[in-house]
Amino acid sequence: MPVVGVIGGGQLARMMHPAAINLGVELRVFTEAEDSSAHQAAYRVGDYLNLKNLEEFCHGLDALTFDHEHVPTELLRELEDLGVAVRPGSKALIHAQNKLVMRERLTELGLPMPAWQRATSSGEVEEFLNQHGPKIVVKTPIGGYDGKGVRVIAEVTEISDWLSDLNRFGGALLLEQKVDFVSECAQLSARSANGEFKLWPLASTFQQDGVCSEVVAPYGAPELQEKAARIAQRISEGLGVVGVLAVEMFVTSEGELVINELAMRPHNSGHFTQDGCITSQFEQHLRAVLGWPLGDTSLHAEFAVMVNLLGVDQENNLVDHFPAAMEKFPGIKFHSYQKLPRAGRKMGHLNLVGQDPKSLLAAARAARELIYNKGQEV
Amino acid sequence: MPVVGVIGGGQLARMMHPAAINLGVELRVFTEAEDSSAHQAAYRVGDYLNLKNLEEFCHGLDALTFDHEHVPTELLRELEDLGVAVRPGSKALIHAQNKLVMRERLTELGLPMPAWQRATSSGEVEEFLNQHGPKIVVKTPIGGYDGKGVRVIAEVTEISDWLSDLNRFGGALLLEQKVDFVSECAQLSARSANGEFKLWPLASTFQQDGVCSEVVAPYGAPELQEKAARIAQRISEGLGVVGVLAVEMFVTSEGELVINELAMRPHNSGHFTQDGCITSQFEQHLRAVLGWPLGDTSLHAEFAVMVNLLGVDQENNLVDHFPAAMEKFPGIKFHSYQKLPRAGRKMGHLNLVGQDPKSLLAAARAARELIYNKGQEV
Repeated sequence: MPVVGVIGGGQLARMMHPAAINLGVELRVFTEAEDSSAHQAAYRVGDYLNLKNLEEFCHGLDALTFDHEHVPTELLRELEDLGVAVRPGSKALIHAQNKLVMRERLTELGLPMPAWQRATSSGEVEEFLNQHGPKIVVKTPIGGYDGKGVRVIAEVTEISDWLSDLNRFGGALLLEQKVDFVSECAQLSARSANGEFKLWPLASTFQQDGVCSEVVAPYGAPELQEKAARIAQRISEGLGVVGVLAVEMFVTSEGELVINELAMRPHNSGHFTQDGCITSQFEQHLRAVLGWPLGDTSLHAEFAVMVNLLGVDQENNLVDHFPAAMEKFPGIKFHSYQKLPRAGRKMGHLNLVGQDPKSLLAAARAARELIYNKGQEV
Repeated sequence: MPVVGVIGGGQLARMMHPAAINLGVELRVFTEAEDSSAHQAAYRVGDYLNLKNLEEFCHGLDALTFDHEHVPTELLRELEDLGVAVRPGSKALIHAQNKLVMRERLTELGLPMPAWQRATSSGEVEEFLNQHGPKIVVKTPIGGYDGKGVRVIAEVTEISDWLSDLNRFGGALLLEQKVDFVSECAQLSARSANGEFKLWPLASTFQQDGVCSEVVAPYGAPELQEKAARIAQRISEGLGVVGVLAVEMFVTSEGELVINELAMRPHNSGHFTQDGCITSQFEQHLRAVLGWPLGDTSLHAEFAVMVNLLGVDQENNLVDHFPAAMEKFPGIKFHSYQKLPRAGRKMGHLNLVGQDPKSLLAAARAARELIYNKGQEV
């Protein structure tokens, strides 16, 4: 029986589990804590920064993959040297772990990006501000997620703390032009270890405070979709990605795409595929890392929408109020990550498919409000 | 967090697990063996015929439900007396456990059935043979499944062994007229603990050697579908079913429906709902036993088909040959139950949706042949 190991016990590992059960693949999760979101597939609990732990975990795996980007490349290289099928491999994954490495490599590939620069001193930051200001974006190359590690600044003093602690981020910061965009989108794709490549429909993404909030697919005119598809395939093949790749992009007023971020794993922008497509990103990721042929990515309906459920406080676990929303919206698919409630925390999401994206979004938002308000209409 | 307990660790419990993970419901399976199909959700391994074991297992459950019909009603009544939410309850479940009780009750409800009779002696069998022969169907009232416990006979001597061992089956046998049918169908429905009732599309079922082999939905003209729907609702409400109910029926040449069997749990005839419908029978069963509102049962496409994967020998685990079939059929959904291979054993199934049932069935059969033949074209 095929066995896939996942490092990290978050909701992405959790959501690989249903796909694994269906396919008859054994999923083994290396998780940080007993009560992680993916606890039902936990195989080992401990410190994944310890090589010996990792080696033991990898015994008997057909492929090793990830819930997050936090395993240092040096450790992955050691595992690769031992013959572990690390997927995506360390040479690809470094581009999702380190945003400076990503910008350098995508520049080499000639892909559309914001003006960017590596900076190690306040002088360099001031110069970039003069050139691209009044505001620029500063990112820590490693360790950022969901808006963490990203600041929009007008003055170099706004990142004094980062500049005085550069070693935490690999010795440098990433400066980026603040792109004047009209919308954001994400191109989800997968590449199998056997080289096969497949795309899902381009999706429109909406962020709130740096966190993905809503997604609608498909998005854009055919020309834009083709551009996005070419970019994703160029990255996936150019970087040797194995597994799911999410490319988050800005759409400018001229209809150009500018690459914002990459993720080499199932991604929040692709949760709509669970209930919206023949093959979900979670199933496809497993097929890809096992080197299996990829599944059909067609939508079940004309449109699919996803809205995230974020924690409202430390009391409301959201799932207790699913029934109130289920009663009004029998077509909505409810997803809970079984996490302890905390304000702003990603706790679950809702998926819905149908013909009219506006009414789908309205329904999903109304269901979300009911859940946030403990089943009470506002 | 809602907690549902399941007695029995077969593939039906296994397939409730993905639905539970998505909904944020904790699934606890009481299984007979460590290596059961539902082992990834196993919470307790042991003897479910022991009341103390059952009591301990039920601690902390919001609802108790079943993978099979083999828990004696007396034990369930004891649990109900202790306040356990047994769903379906013992008063309903007895009709799925004992075919004589089922025939008696459905006769009271005025539902269409084959001529039938309770028999305890060879004289009664001979009389029924004279009346309804040349062939009749004899069933053991309890313990039968997948064609086991069913014999078509022309002579009373063909069931001498059963007649001499009546205590094994509750003291009597069930005699039934052999219905002259043109096709078989199954009406799947669900009733929530809150009383809500919902139907999936009527499905056409094909058996081979008494085992479900292929299913196509929807099936039948609107008039037949309405008849089937009325029968299912009458049974579900009349018997007080909570959870999924499958009603297997014969279709006669006059277009009449005749009830064959009942199951009060997710059923092989409803596996198409996993990938073919907005809400699968497994998710709906969990929602129903928790008293939650039921989900939309609409099909994702015009037609959905399912073909079972049966074991071919003790070597071929089937899942190892999924990739060969995936390559040719990217739209097919592959399901493995992770069971040790054995000839004739239900090992998994394939689902496929689309517009033309004939070409869907042809594709699913071709994929099955590839898997049976270890990836080799025949």
